[in-house]
Amino acid sequence: MKIAVLGTGEVGRRLASAFVANGHQVTLGSRTADNTNAAQWAAEQGGSHGTFAQAAADAELVVNATAGLVSLDVLTAAGAENLDGKVVVDVSNPLDFSAGFPPKVLQKDGLSVAEQIQRAFPGVRVVKTLNTMNNIVMVEPSLVPGHHNVFVSGDDADAKTVVTDLLQEFGWSSAQIIDLGELSTAGGTELVLPLWVQLYGKLDGKPFNFAVVTA
Amino acid sequence: MKIAVLGTGEVGRRLASAFVANGHQVTLGSRTADNTNAAQWAAEQGGSHGTFAQAAADAELVVNATAGLVSLDVLTAAGAENLDGKVVVDVSNPLDFSAGFPPKVLQKDGLSVAEQIQRAFPGVRVVKTLNTMNNIVMVEPSLVPGHHNVFVSGDDADAKTVVTDLLQEFGWSSAQIIDLGELSTAGGTELVLPLWVQLYGKLDGKPFNFAVVTA
Repeated sequence: MKIAVLGTGEVGRRLASAFVANGHQVTLGSRTADNTNAAQWAAEQGGSHGTFAQAAADAELVVNATAGLVSLDVLTAAGAENLDGKVVVDVSNPLDFSAGFPPKVLQKDGLSVAEQIQRAFPGVRVVKTLNTMNNIVMVEPSLVPGHHNVFVSGDDADAKTVVTDLLQEFGWSSAQIIDLGELSTAGGTELVLPLWVQLYGKLDGKPFNFAVVTA
Repeated sequence: MKIAVLGTGEVGRRLASAFVANGHQVTLGSRTADNTNAAQWAAEQGGSHGTFAQAAADAELVVNATAGLVSLDVLTAAGAENLDGKVVVDVSNPLDFSAGFPPKVLQKDGLSVAEQIQRAFPGVRVVKTLNTMNNIVMVEPSLVPGHHNVFVSGDDADAKTVVTDLLQEFGWSSAQIIDLGELSTAGGTELVLPLWVQLYGKLDGKPFNFAVVTA
C-alpha cells in the first residue's frame, strides 16, 4: 500500500520504517521538501520523502504522527484535496508542555485530535490508534510479554479493518486489538497520557504497555 | 483501626463492608444522621453510621468515597478539626455528567480531587488510590485473574504505608500496587476514567481492571 507518514520525529520514522519493512511504499512527509531527518530516513530505509502535500497526494493511506497540538496545521498543509476519501490514521496526542513537565492533555472544545481532524476534513475517514504506548512497542508489540492491548476508535468500519490489518502486520493479534467503537471514544485514549508519562518516568524508559484484564 | 467512610453510595458501602470484614471498626458517614442507606448498612453489616462530622471525629483514618465534584463540600462538612493529622484516602473521581453521558473529568484549576483536598486541608495526609476500577474489584482483586494493578499517590510515606496495608488486606499483592509517587500524580489516574467508562460499556459491566505490563 502507498502510505504517507506525516511527521519526521521518532514516532513518524519508527512507523515509516516498520511499514517499509512490511512491504509498503512509504513517503515521509515534512513541512519542507529538504528536511534533513526525512532525507536521511529515506536514504537509509528505502522510502521517499517530500512535503506534507506531496506525501499525502501520492498515498492511499495517511498517518498523522505529528504533535497533536499542530496536527490540524499539518493536515491543512497536506491539503484537503490530497486527503479526501483516504483513511487517516491518527497516532497523535495533544500534549501541552507550555507549563513545563509533566505535560497536560489539551483537548480544544473537549475534542480529541482525531475528532478535530474528522470535523475539519469531513472527506477523510479517521481512525485513532497506537497513541497509548512507547513508539517502539507500536511496531513490535512482542517487546512487551504476555497480554497487553492497543485501542482503535473510528466511525468507518472499512477504515478500521484496513488499520487493523496494518496492526496485525506489526504483530498485534486480534485478541490484543480493542475496538472501542466510534471516533468519539478517541478522547479517552488521549487522556491516558498523563498516567503514561508518570509510568514512563518510573520505569526509566523501559518499554511497557497497558492491558485490560477481564474477569 | 477506626475508619470513617464518607459517602453511602455503592462505592462507600462496598469499602465499608470490606473494612468491617477485615476487623475494622467502621462508621459510614452521610450528610444527615438519619440517612436510610447508612442506617440499613450499619444494621446489616455491624458498623455504625452518623453525619460526616461524627464519622470523621471518631476515626483514625477517613475514606472519601463521595462523588469527586462534591468531595470538598463533604470534607468541609466533616470539619477540619475532625480531620487534622489523619490519613484521608481519596477514591473519588470528578466526573461531570452535566452534558450527559459519557461524563467528562472536571479538574478544577487542573488539580485532582486529591490535590484539592490536600490544599484545602493542609493538616491531613491525602493518599489517592482505587479510583481506576469497578468497586467490586477494589475490595476483591482476585475477581480479575492474573496481573493487574492499583495505583497509589501521596506526599506522605507513612500514610502510603498505612494505605498499602489496607490494600493488602483486600488481597492486593505488593507486586500489584504501583506507587506513582507524590500526590500530583493523582490527576493522571482520574483522567483514565473516560477510557474506563467506554470499556465498562463495552464489557457490559463485567469486572475488569488495567494492568501495566513491562518488558
